[in-house]
Amino acid sequence: MAKTKYEHLKQEAYEANMQLPKLGLVLFTFGNVSAADRSLGVFAIKPSGIPYGELTPEKMVIVDFESNIVEGALRPSSDTKTHAVLYKHWDKVNGIAHTHSTYATAWAQAQRDIPIYGTTHADHNTFDIPCALPMSDEMIQGEYEYETGHQVINWFKEKGLSYEEVEMILVGNHAPFTWGRNVGKAVYNSAVLENIAQIAYLTETINCNAPRLKEVLIKKHYERKHGPGSYYGQ
Amino acid sequence: MAKTKYEHLKQEAYEANMQLPKLGLVLFTFGNVSAADRSLGVFAIKPSGIPYGELTPEKMVIVDFESNIVEGALRPSSDTKTHAVLYKHWDKVNGIAHTHSTYATAWAQAQRDIPIYGTTHADHNTFDIPCALPMSDEMIQGEYEYETGHQVINWFKEKGLSYEEVEMILVGNHAPFTWGRNVGKAVYNSAVLENIAQIAYLTETINCNAPRLKEVLIKKHYERKHGPGSYYGQ
Amino acid sequence: MAKTKYEHLKQEAYEANMQLPKLGLVLFTFGNVSAADRSLGVFAIKPSGIPYGELTPEKMVIVDFESNIVEGALRPSSDTKTHAVLYKHWDKVNGIAHTHSTYATAWAQAQRDIPIYGTTHADHNTFDIPCALPMSDEMIQGEYEYETGHQVINWFKEKGLSYEEVEMILVGNHAPFTWGRNVGKAVYNSAVLENIAQIAYLTETINCNAPRLKEVLIKKHYERKHGPGSYYGQ
Amino acid sequence: MAKTKYEHLKQEAYEANMQLPKLGLVLFTFGNVSAADRSLGVFAIKPSGIPYGELTPEKMVIVDFESNIVEGALRPSSDTKTHAVLYKHWDKVNGIAHTHSTYATAWAQAQRDIPIYGTTHADHNTFDIPCALPMSDEMIQGEYEYETGHQVINWFKEKGLSYEEVEMILVGNHAPFTWGRNVGKAVYNSAVLENIAQIAYLTETINCNAPRLKEVLIKKHYERKHGPGSYYGQ
Repeated sequence: MAKTKYEHLKQEAYEANMQLPKLGLVLFTFGNVSAADRSLGVFAIKPSGIPYGELTPEKMVIVDFESNIVEGALRPSSDTKTHAVLYKHWDKVNGIAHTHSTYATAWAQAQRDIPIYGTTHADHNTFDIPCALPMSDEMIQGEYEYETGHQVINWFKEKGLSYEEVEMILVGNHAPFTWGRNVGKAVYNSAVLENIAQIAYLTETINCNAPRLKEVLIKKHYERKHGPGSYYGQ
Repeated sequence: MAKTKYEHLKQEAYEANMQLPKLGLVLFTFGNVSAADRSLGVFAIKPSGIPYGELTPEKMVIVDFESNIVEGALRPSSDTKTHAVLYKHWDKVNGIAHTHSTYATAWAQAQRDIPIYGTTHADHNTFDIPCALPMSDEMIQGEYEYETGHQVINWFKEKGLSYEEVEMILVGNHAPFTWGRNVGKAVYNSAVLENIAQIAYLTETINCNAPRLKEVLIKKHYERKHGPGSYYGQ
Repeated sequence: MAKTKYEHLKQEAYEANMQLPKLGLVLFTFGNVSAADRSLGVFAIKPSGIPYGELTPEKMVIVDFESNIVEGALRPSSDTKTHAVLYKHWDKVNGIAHTHSTYATAWAQAQRDIPIYGTTHADHNTFDIPCALPMSDEMIQGEYEYETGHQVINWFKEKGLSYEEVEMILVGNHAPFTWGRNVGKAVYNSAVLENIAQIAYLTETINCNAPRLKEVLIKKHYERKHGPGSYYGQ
Repeated sequence: MAKTKYEHLKQEAYEANMQLPKLGLVLFTFGNVSAADRSLGVFAIKPSGIPYGELTPEKMVIVDFESNIVEGALRPSSDTKTHAVLYKHWDKVNGIAHTHSTYATAWAQAQRDIPIYGTTHADHNTFDIPCALPMSDEMIQGEYEYETGHQVINWFKEKGLSYEEVEMILVGNHAPFTWGRNVGKAVYNSAVLENIAQIAYLTETINCNAPRLKEVLIKKHYERKHGPGSYYGQ
């Protein structure tokens, strides 16, 4: 196969997908990652139903933000339209990850936001992790994956959340989606979300009246890592 | 030992058995897998009580659907009659797996069906995972493993379930059995069941009033992967 | 160091001790295994406080059934007297393992017997796993490890349990001890106990009214593997 | 870069930091370890936000007990001032570890001391593991990491705890800090604390009325390992 201008993007998407099993976030094929290149107006995404052990960079599928397949011999992930909608509407997102990681999926099935109980959470954002309730029957029966993308965007709009701060959502009864300014950040957020979800689960079992983290502490930890006065990292 | 016409089947059963410890589904010898060849009218099954580390393809035992040993120097799995009954009555099943995987076994011991709480479950079937209640004392004291096979078949009949859709059951107070059109699918289903069982466990702990997945969403996810309009995979 | 008649026993005890970290049953030095040779009237036991990574067969300590050190440059496990008492009184025991494995230790701290909820348990014995309540203050302040051995033996006597059938106990607020006709069986029982303890924990969380396994099923599964009519294994 | 007098300390801190991922105590960069040299009046600490896979001894940062950077090209851990305060006030501490390990962090988020339920705990100290409640808003908004150090010291003073016996604390809504007479002991304590936290969690779930370990047993187990009459180890 001749080399195309998408090789770097396929490589990037391939490597990010391969992180999911290494981080213990997927069983079999239950997950997918995509990486976007804004200058080319496309993203590379995992092909549908291919086990991680059989993935190669060449098998990635190139898709544009209207969900048209641009290049690739395989059918893209069944969640491709959800990715496309998010890329189209959120222009600073360049990577998206979807997993069925155990604890985050349990919160999604429980239809509950994950309360912000500690600084591990506040190091990443200042809100409860939102859980979007299931869509109307009409939307599910229609263009389901496309509507899922819009559901996520509308949920953020209604709740007044910024996708640049809160880079994760639980789709109710389904599972999490995470994103970031690059695909590495999107995968990182999937692992962070699973970690936050597990610790919050244990926190409630240990103390069913566990208090939400107080605002001053939320702000302090978030601002240590983010924004103009941050002093975490190099 | 001279090569026989069962070599391919022994190899297939051996490889499938070796997946169980790799997938974290068995401790010591607590599990067994069989692979059937309908044209030969037999199945190959793990020998009883042999640690996975000592298994070889040659040690597999060839048994017919009436539970007669056809070939093999070792005694077959103590659950062999259960496998034979299922193969005899369900003619599209070509592989069966039995484990004592942790979460699935806990649901079996709790004597509860696993409610369908999310799309991870609906991606595989549209019903709660059935838990067959323990048999009568007479059946247990009689041909126990043979009766277990009939119990599974009768449970499906009574509940109106199709073994081609729901490829798994919890045998109450015992542990799960899973199956499929080939042995790879049977083992795959064991891992999927354990995953579903764990997420359902966590879901109920997070929200003791967690709602069952709504019908439209069950149907949508199942039909994405199965049937004429499916669009998952290649 | 000159070879002695205890080399085989040290090797056996060493290999059994090294199984504990492999099976995920110990953190750091929290556990010990001993192997007895009845014809020599001694057992080999792990030295106290030595990390598993630094163990060698030569470091094992040879002790008699009165707790006298017979051979060895290092101080034996602090639990040595408990081992000695069990060997002295239970003459078919040739191996003993002690761990602080997570779930079994939690049941011990909860001061509860582990109810027999399923066939995984009944495959190994027909009783709830006993939890011996803490000793009197006088016994603790006296020869503590020696008294622990007697506490275990008395608990079995009072409850009418046979150490040849039930090869495990939870010492209340402390942790489990397991044993067997050889040291391999003792270590095997430690892993089985941890597995039973975890599944029982999950069973109660899923169904707080989970029924105890019925007697006919207990008997059936136990007798499949043990006694004159057994048909499990080779 | 020319060798300095701090090479040994950097090496020691580097090796101790690398233990955290091996022991399963950190995700990504969520943790840090420091090692002090009292004769030089400094400690070596992990640089901020550097993944463990990219750490080298050379990247460690040398800091004095007033939090001044003495040597190093990178910015030190954002928790550096907490370490400095502890070293300054507790003169027998020569190593400090901070993780967000799952179970210990859950107890911290639940704002609960970990009750002493068993001998695994009493082998290490004789008190419930203290959880320091969150600081006042003013202290959080001020020199947060510096104040965290003082909060820990004051909590021990108020509760009458000795930092030489209880080598660990949960900082409420945040996560644990542990320490020791050397950095190996500090890291060891992080793993022990996580283990104690998990077993205590399970203990309460199994028996919500689980009794605290009785005083005589606490004293016995602690004194087996610590103090003049100890007989654990070599």
